[in-house]
Amino acid sequence: MLKILSAHYYSSEQKRMNSTSSSEPLRPKGVQPGEFRQESDTFGPVQVPAEKYWGAQTQRSLQNFRIGGPGERLPLPLIQAFGILKFAAASVNKTFGLDPKLAGAIEHAAQEVIDGRLDDNFPLVVYQTGSGTQSNMNSNEVIANRAIDLLGGTLGSKKPVHPNDHVNMSQSSNDTFPTVMHIASVLQIRRHLLPAMELLRDALKIKQDEFQDIIKIGRTHMQDATPLSLGQEFSGYVTQMEYGIARVHNALPRLSLLAQGGTAVGTGLNTFKGFDVKIAEKISEITGIEFKTAPNKFEALAAHDALVEMSGALNTVACSLMKIANDIRQLGSGPRCGLGELVLPANEPGSSIMPGKVNPTQCEALTMVCAQVMGNHTTITFSGASGHCELNVFKPVMAKNLLSSIRLLGDACESFTDHCVKGIEASREGIARHLNDSLMLVTALNPHIGYDNCAKIAKTAHKNQTTLKKEFVDLGYGSAEQFEEWVRPELMISPKK
Amino acid sequence: MLKILSAHYYSSEQKRMNSTSSSEPLRPKGVQPGEFRQESDTFGPVQVPAEKYWGAQTQRSLQNFRIGGPGERLPLPLIQAFGILKFAAASVNKTFGLDPKLAGAIEHAAQEVIDGRLDDNFPLVVYQTGSGTQSNMNSNEVIANRAIDLLGGTLGSKKPVHPNDHVNMSQSSNDTFPTVMHIASVLQIRRHLLPAMELLRDALKIKQDEFQDIIKIGRTHMQDATPLSLGQEFSGYVTQMEYGIARVHNALPRLSLLAQGGTAVGTGLNTFKGFDVKIAEKISEITGIEFKTAPNKFEALAAHDALVEMSGALNTVACSLMKIANDIRQLGSGPRCGLGELVLPANEPGSSIMPGKVNPTQCEALTMVCAQVMGNHTTITFSGASGHCELNVFKPVMAKNLLSSIRLLGDACESFTDHCVKGIEASREGIARHLNDSLMLVTALNPHIGYDNCAKIAKTAHKNQTTLKKEFVDLGYGSAEQFEEWVRPELMISPKK
Amino acid sequence: MLKILSAHYYSSEQKRMNSTSSSEPLRPKGVQPGEFRQESDTFGPVQVPAEKYWGAQTQRSLQNFRIGGPGERLPLPLIQAFGILKFAAASVNKTFGLDPKLAGAIEHAAQEVIDGRLDDNFPLVVYQTGSGTQSNMNSNEVIANRAIDLLGGTLGSKKPVHPNDHVNMSQSSNDTFPTVMHIASVLQIRRHLLPAMELLRDALKIKQDEFQDIIKIGRTHMQDATPLSLGQEFSGYVTQMEYGIARVHNALPRLSLLAQGGTAVGTGLNTFKGFDVKIAEKISEITGIEFKTAPNKFEALAAHDALVEMSGALNTVACSLMKIANDIRQLGSGPRCGLGELVLPANEPGSSIMPGKVNPTQCEALTMVCAQVMGNHTTITFSGASGHCELNVFKPVMAKNLLSSIRLLGDACESFTDHCVKGIEASREGIARHLNDSLMLVTALNPHIGYDNCAKIAKTAHKNQTTLKKEFVDLGYGSAEQFEEWVRPELMISPKK
Amino acid sequence: MLKILSAHYYSSEQKRMNSTSSSEPLRPKGVQPGEFRQESDTFGPVQVPAEKYWGAQTQRSLQNFRIGGPGERLPLPLIQAFGILKFAAASVNKTFGLDPKLAGAIEHAAQEVIDGRLDDNFPLVVYQTGSGTQSNMNSNEVIANRAIDLLGGTLGSKKPVHPNDHVNMSQSSNDTFPTVMHIASVLQIRRHLLPAMELLRDALKIKQDEFQDIIKIGRTHMQDATPLSLGQEFSGYVTQMEYGIARVHNALPRLSLLAQGGTAVGTGLNTFKGFDVKIAEKISEITGIEFKTAPNKFEALAAHDALVEMSGALNTVACSLMKIANDIRQLGSGPRCGLGELVLPANEPGSSIMPGKVNPTQCEALTMVCAQVMGNHTTITFSGASGHCELNVFKPVMAKNLLSSIRLLGDACESFTDHCVKGIEASREGIARHLNDSLMLVTALNPHIGYDNCAKIAKTAHKNQTTLKKEFVDLGYGSAEQFEEWVRPELMISPKK
Repeated sequence: MLKILSAHYYSSEQKRMNSTSSSEPLRPKGVQPGEFRQESDTFGPVQVPAEKYWGAQTQRSLQNFRIGGPGERLPLPLIQAFGILKFAAASVNKTFGLDPKLAGAIEHAAQEVIDGRLDDNFPLVVYQTGSGTQSNMNSNEVIANRAIDLLGGTLGSKKPVHPNDHVNMSQSSNDTFPTVMHIASVLQIRRHLLPAMELLRDALKIKQDEFQDIIKIGRTHMQDATPLSLGQEFSGYVTQMEYGIARVHNALPRLSLLAQGGTAVGTGLNTFKGFDVKIAEKISEITGIEFKTAPNKFEALAAHDALVEMSGALNTVACSLMKIANDIRQLGSGPRCGLGELVLPANEPGSSIMPGKVNPTQCEALTMVCAQVMGNHTTITFSGASGHCELNVFKPVMAKNLLSSIRLLGDACESFTDHCVKGIEASREGIARHLNDSLMLVTALNPHIGYDNCAKIAKTAHKNQTTLKKEFVDLGYGSAEQFEEWVRPELMISPKK
Repeated sequence: MLKILSAHYYSSEQKRMNSTSSSEPLRPKGVQPGEFRQESDTFGPVQVPAEKYWGAQTQRSLQNFRIGGPGERLPLPLIQAFGILKFAAASVNKTFGLDPKLAGAIEHAAQEVIDGRLDDNFPLVVYQTGSGTQSNMNSNEVIANRAIDLLGGTLGSKKPVHPNDHVNMSQSSNDTFPTVMHIASVLQIRRHLLPAMELLRDALKIKQDEFQDIIKIGRTHMQDATPLSLGQEFSGYVTQMEYGIARVHNALPRLSLLAQGGTAVGTGLNTFKGFDVKIAEKISEITGIEFKTAPNKFEALAAHDALVEMSGALNTVACSLMKIANDIRQLGSGPRCGLGELVLPANEPGSSIMPGKVNPTQCEALTMVCAQVMGNHTTITFSGASGHCELNVFKPVMAKNLLSSIRLLGDACESFTDHCVKGIEASREGIARHLNDSLMLVTALNPHIGYDNCAKIAKTAHKNQTTLKKEFVDLGYGSAEQFEEWVRPELMISPKK
Repeated sequence: MLKILSAHYYSSEQKRMNSTSSSEPLRPKGVQPGEFRQESDTFGPVQVPAEKYWGAQTQRSLQNFRIGGPGERLPLPLIQAFGILKFAAASVNKTFGLDPKLAGAIEHAAQEVIDGRLDDNFPLVVYQTGSGTQSNMNSNEVIANRAIDLLGGTLGSKKPVHPNDHVNMSQSSNDTFPTVMHIASVLQIRRHLLPAMELLRDALKIKQDEFQDIIKIGRTHMQDATPLSLGQEFSGYVTQMEYGIARVHNALPRLSLLAQGGTAVGTGLNTFKGFDVKIAEKISEITGIEFKTAPNKFEALAAHDALVEMSGALNTVACSLMKIANDIRQLGSGPRCGLGELVLPANEPGSSIMPGKVNPTQCEALTMVCAQVMGNHTTITFSGASGHCELNVFKPVMAKNLLSSIRLLGDACESFTDHCVKGIEASREGIARHLNDSLMLVTALNPHIGYDNCAKIAKTAHKNQTTLKKEFVDLGYGSAEQFEEWVRPELMISPKK
Repeated sequence: MLKILSAHYYSSEQKRMNSTSSSEPLRPKGVQPGEFRQESDTFGPVQVPAEKYWGAQTQRSLQNFRIGGPGERLPLPLIQAFGILKFAAASVNKTFGLDPKLAGAIEHAAQEVIDGRLDDNFPLVVYQTGSGTQSNMNSNEVIANRAIDLLGGTLGSKKPVHPNDHVNMSQSSNDTFPTVMHIASVLQIRRHLLPAMELLRDALKIKQDEFQDIIKIGRTHMQDATPLSLGQEFSGYVTQMEYGIARVHNALPRLSLLAQGGTAVGTGLNTFKGFDVKIAEKISEITGIEFKTAPNKFEALAAHDALVEMSGALNTVACSLMKIANDIRQLGSGPRCGLGELVLPANEPGSSIMPGKVNPTQCEALTMVCAQVMGNHTTITFSGASGHCELNVFKPVMAKNLLSSIRLLGDACESFTDHCVKGIEASREGIARHLNDSLMLVTALNPHIGYDNCAKIAKTAHKNQTTLKKEFVDLGYGSAEQFEEWVRPELMISPKK
């Protein structure tokens, strides 16, 4: 198994923005800034910046699709997945006749793509051809030229390594792009999202246990209701996270099927019998994660229901997180004029005018992430429904939105755990005050003095703005001691034995 | 101008469900229950229930589209609009050669459709052909047979009134259906939605005025902030409603353009020069609302951007109402363990266990309506984007969802006004307690003792769970009298002079 | 196991609209039309139509929530589920002390609810309190009064059967409504949607087999591509349906968990230990479908992620069906100026002007259903994200939208299968003409004369508007016989051996 | 009026990614890479990279919100708008007592923000506090430190320019962030989106005129219909664009209202009477675009309906563009096996296997943009509905999504115009063949030989796969000359005179 740094793309993105990067990006030797190299395709010659490895088709795409700027480039996990795929293809192609020397050079260059050392050679944006052909060619061109470089050839000569004949051997954009969409998504889910969700679940579980004996007033319709323990309240959140993790797992099997081997329309024309199974095995080996070849390649090229399905799972997770964050924000509202039952960690100054003001900023970041995930889901849904005949041509925008949802949810779960959940404390005083004030505890008197008398007590206390105990005594139903014996919230948080 | 009862479709729907309807629906005379009549079209003969006026094409649609059941029938405002359109067409066709006797009978039958007396002759569901052809034929068939009835002819004979040649003269489904979508939407917006929104705005404005002198604590991030008056808070809601009304008005001009005259593909083949202008004028006359002929009929058949635009306006209104209802629900939370600044009217018993529990049920109904409107908007958006060449074939589902949004918002504004807003009272005690407790009032001391000293007071009060005044005095910054002179919330709710 | 007619709610809805219903709805005896009966609740007395069984709380809801009209009533499958639940509760409550005579009468009345004989006693709309309390009370009131009727008591007396104390025993609206949402959804999915999806999958599979030897041109980017068989094309659709069925199954486990036993806030206050497990068993027995008690009741009341999850699965199915219907519509376009590769069944006359025009109306109905399901999903998502503390108060609108998606997809799959897929025929002539015309077959010559020569042939044929064969011969690459030997589309639809 | 380069942020983003930037970003002098500077806030001291101007609060946000990476930074148009706002505030504050020397330095630094020279000092991501407070502080800190730099002070000393007291004077995050959201959106709409939409409309209009005499077959339901001219077909697209431009204009008035002057909760506490009007005037002067102060500041802070409204307009535009791009893609399908009525420009090689394959890549990029805009709209809708009390805390995610929609639509309109629409040619041959083949032309014979005979001709031709003319002659209805005289498509594209 080849080593893939799980945090690859974070550091990589950091590098993009940061001049003080430690590991230098790879560049052709002996090139002066501002120089150009001639590359060509069937449309003729094109000038390409000499310091880049890409070729004519990448350059044309750069010129033809000035949409969205650098912020809309293909996400790096897709680029890394192209590295994995091209590595695997070279390995398998060796067994179907590819010259081992060429295969070795391709593998070497592909590993560099995996390692992020060629990230700045992938400048294309999402809004290109809907099959992602130009990004497949981008990876073919870069790997071919880098392999040529390694073998001492001339960049742009396509010799001895040809982008189509060798790097793209047995492949078509139409099966590579779905394949990298699946590889990238599964990797980011398994390595980033699921661990982050488990982190949050575990942190909430610790709070559930910590809070299990704190009895508080319940709220339904945002109105006072019968009591429960704060631990019980948090157990609901833990269950939501637990189910959310199961939902994501449930959608993985179909996302782990690879289109590779279908080539242009799903038939596998120009590839070899067995190529599809072998490449899935190789990719599993490289990544340490099980992938299988898609049993039906026509579906795998023409429909991306597996992405819509996973996005649906993430949309459900977003609903769960929205609920949890909203509750925590609300229970932590105050300090004086809100519910004030939780104390959230103070991570930064609130207003410059208002001392003591701590805002639930982690809840806010998380709920904004959830709103984004819901929007991404709409884009993925519309796109997924819009395939025609043998190909869905909304691939890059689907991949971008799914990877965005995966990363944002993963990052936000980590941030919310570390900077909020871990530091949550119960405001025992505030909780006790609400519990004692509540008129709903009257329910406990039902078996002793009957529903109608209870109602009278509650209504009188509400009208007089007094306590249940006071009215119980004043109305002559019993003594303060009896009240205290009968009204015990700790007996109201479970069924009768 | 012909009389159209604005509340037509409510009473009409009521009739559908209610056996004790006062005005009997119209039926062919001398027909026994269970009898059938033969009708025919180019596909041959079909058996039709003799007590109905519809013909062969309606009957085929009933059999071919068993989707959704009666709950998914075309909304009645569309049926009424067909009545208006067919009336107008007969009137205008007279000037282009239609026999006045036939025209008169068509007008008579169309008026009965307008009056809702033939509602149970329109059984077709939304999920039929996407052009609405079958519903156009339904109205042609019913009006033709009813006109034949009036003229003493034989039902199903197509003589002397032919559904296509006479009722549908100069028309095509492809221009009639867009026309009725626009007529129905504009009518429901002008007669129901806008008045209901104005009702709510006015009720909120009365509360704004009523509450203008009640100063309360503000809340940002759900945390305590500087004060404002309750009237100021409600002024935000009034402004949202005011802008919402403007937004709906802004989208009306393009919705008031009619496709009629475009016939099959927008060219106007088989209609007369000037027919389009005349029929728009006639429809304006009938309804008392200005409609104009669409300057470009190709756009009017192939795209329904005007519906998407209006749905976008309603989606914005839904966001406004969601905010308003959420605020009112939250400010009314309690009675003991919530914010408790508003008292909402109690319309029904809360829990059978918990006396004194009043739930903000009108807020809940309204927010559910808002969620529905947002979903309707997604359906309308997807459908609106999916036209092809000369025709969009998602017409019925677009019309259904837009009319649903219009009606639900209108109904909910009325219900929320009558059963909630009008009865809202301020809980002056709760408001005052929060205001006095708040640490944010310390801001008022800034000019007198400086920011740092203020911060010290606020933090100490927070730590000690005491008041600002107590710490101000205890820490030696001044007397209780000075505090009361300097800390005056009523001076904190506007800019410095 | 009690008998529940799977087609219950269709016939029931039909009855609502149809005066010639065979089984009369149940009514209190000796009541004259127009009479009223007095019912009461803690707010005081209310007048109720004497011919209805409902009580005071139902009547108040009718008056307070005039939103949407009869078209927005709670879907009948929910009412049926209330019948099932109340039946099960009475049975289980017997073991916890409920008088067997009363329990028997409740079971009898509940069975009548299940059978649809009391449908017209459930008049409440979706847009009521967000907990569905009023519909829970509606079912309590109707069953209590009907049981009183059966036991010879006086309607409205609450004796000997009390709506709260007996029918609602051990329950709260807050756990019954989530329970009926789950029961109704699971039943409709298992009895209607899944069978309908399997029907469509099987019909497509038959076409896959029937078309397996018909070789046709592939299309990617809507442009000509390499060939595949029509059977292969349909195999993609079959796979989409197969996966869709799996997706729905995957979401069932969490939807089959019941909240019952959580009562007001999830703690189970006022119910019995073990009640939750027993009632889930009883419901499983009644329905013949396995339900389990939810391990965490707090989650089950406060979040409805299970509905969001299932809606996400249905949203994915909608994307699949949109793709399938769009393809079939497009491949059947014509008859002269479209692709013309499929012949779709003609179910009804097209235009009255244009003979021979057959429209793909079943595709249109199905794609409109898909757009509706996507919109429903937005509503469900927004609602599911909006719970607060111990309760989500968007329950009725979530249930309505999920049940709408289930039914519409089920109905549309059946309609599309019966009226479209089963009758699809391949237009062998049209397919062959496209295949022979296509320039993409030149790919087969690559191994014989090389890529560059192939390109020359293709470009020349494109320029001259001639055939590949002609240019192959004219340009001197070989004979017509050689061309026919080498260019064999049937060898282009699979990988090399 | 100060000069603001309209293409500012494009070049700026380019710089972010490009080491060979011409104008160096500004840096504090004499700083070595890797050095740190101490900054502080009320939470204490923090280490900040010495080469950056930002302060403690920016640094804390960087550490607390590791969500999404650099790709999720606040969009540059917002940063530029902060420059504009802070410039305007300093200018107006001079009239309310701010030391002119300090004001001058602030203006100088703010102008550098406007010019993009400090872009790399704005590292914060969207997913921070939902009020955008940290980005407001980021701009306060950077401008203060840069102004200190200009005045020869010590960075981090807050002397003589204090980030809160001077740069943020009379302001609060709660009014500045809504203000920059509006400024940035209006600027990008007026300078980029609207011109791009006009460009596309004009290019389509040129094609409309160019194609006005080319008569072609119409298509409804994707089936052959009566003819129209290709110019008429394009006129529908032109109208859609025309209306789209009007829709965007319609939503501008409310987006041009500024919250500035509302400070913390909308009351204007700590600002001056008249400050709001003056700053709106100043911003209008700087930008050359009319902005007005919002009449109600409570609405302006707590609700962002104006953004939802504009997003609804853009969503409608996306529907229009989806329709246009889909049509052009479909009409250009082929070259041999599609509709083949349009020839789209070939901008890049298609498949490496299949010569002559040109894909409609610009249509694909545009439709992906439309799907993204629809998703952005969902995010904006959910966020816009989720404000509470005095503040909506989804501000950054709303701004990001709206600015994304604006830019993507603008860029895509330009790209689609330049690389597709301008080069579209009609395939007169393909169009003529379809027109002549069509059976729908038989409609023209109606007045001469009657509907029934026409139907017979059409059906016979369909069955025999022959032409109308052949069957007209063969069936004995007349001569070929008569057919040619009577069947003239050019007379079928308008109403009767």
